Amino acid sequence: MPSALILLADGTEEMEFTITYDTLVRAGIACCSAYVQENSGSEKPLYATGSRGIRIVYDTVFDEQTVNTSYDVLVIPGGAKGAETMSTNTAVQALVREFLGKDDKIVGMICAGSLTALSSKLPRQPLTSHPSVKAQLEDDFDYSEEPVVISKNLVTSRGPGTAFPFALTLVELLCSADKRAEVRAPMVFPANTPF
Amino acid sequence: MPSALILLADGTEEMEFTITYDTLVRAGIACCSAYVQENSGSEKPLYATGSRGIRIVYDTVFDEQTVNTSYDVLVIPGGAKGAETMSTNTAVQALVREFLGKDDKIVGMICAGSLTALSSKLPRQPLTSHPSVKAQLEDDFDYSEEPVVISKNLVTSRGPGTAFPFALTLVELLCSADKRAEVRAPMVFPANTPF
Repeated sequence: MPSALILLADGTEEMEFTITYDTLVRAGIACCSAYVQENSGSEKPLYATGSRGIRIVYDTVFDEQTVNTSYDVLVIPGGAKGAETMSTNTAVQALVREFLGKDDKIVGMICAGSLTALSSKLPRQPLTSHPSVKAQLEDDFDYSEEPVVISKNLVTSRGPGTAFPFALTLVELLCSADKRAEVRAPMVFPANTPF
Repeated sequence: MPSALILLADGTEEMEFTITYDTLVRAGIACCSAYVQENSGSEKPLYATGSRGIRIVYDTVFDEQTVNTSYDVLVIPGGAKGAETMSTNTAVQALVREFLGKDDKIVGMICAGSLTALSSKLPRQPLTSHPSVKAQLEDDFDYSEEPVVISKNLVTSRGPGTAFPFALTLVELLCSADKRAEVRAPMVFPANTPF
């Protein structure tokens, strides 16, 4: 069974987190949410408070035990404040580089989460993000406005409105196109939905 | 500022809950999540565990204090087990009937949440739901397969794949078409998304 490490912080966009986690679980992927603390010295709450106030209890804390590459995919969701916490965390940056250095691993970044590509000093390559952070990324990457951009094992996407195609793309890459179709059908997207 | 009471139970489909809550908050609607307990006598956890294992801390418990009609909209999400708990709760059924009896209130049901229309003994009217519970509803309602069905002040929808148009429809009805467009734009839906 493939496994996913999905980061969570205060200020994470809760739709991007939830759509990805839930869709991957529907595909049979074992998901673990790991809380990245803004100030590592301070006391940890039991949950992360999302960008619109939804409080989500995390599965584990992002620390020595969870900073490992046993997972098949590492996901970095958006939400301005949450993405800032993740993208400026040096252990997150190191894990991103370690995952991308292995052909059988995937890193997914969505919305402002794509700022982690810059802070992790990834080489120039195709990438997308939320439009609000495009200006910070377009000089260093081949910026695209496609809903989902696959660049070898880096998958990037744009915002809550592209979270379903982002998550379904991860399912296809980790499992198969058949599994993507199997997971998508009972979600009942409107006719002519382009993903 | 309009306000929303969004029910939450163990087994609630966490994407349907989160997309609705977050989208309404983006529109400036004050959202309160209320935990409906499966067995009212048992000890309450601090959070509801969603259908795919995401644990969400609720804002309040659904009881005498929250069972009131000061809210502008009551939302009943799906997820088989969560919807069963809500639809069989007699206080939920009474609140649904009370909301629908007032012209300035809205009730939203999505996915298996639409079973609450049956258990609340609502009159025959246009309605949709998740396809998995269609057989339980089609004899008593004018069953539709549209992504979102508006029947006076009852708004029903189909599943996670229709949660965005469901939530945006509630924003349009509670606020305006302009507010719907304003909330939708920064979500960055792919081109040609039909909602």
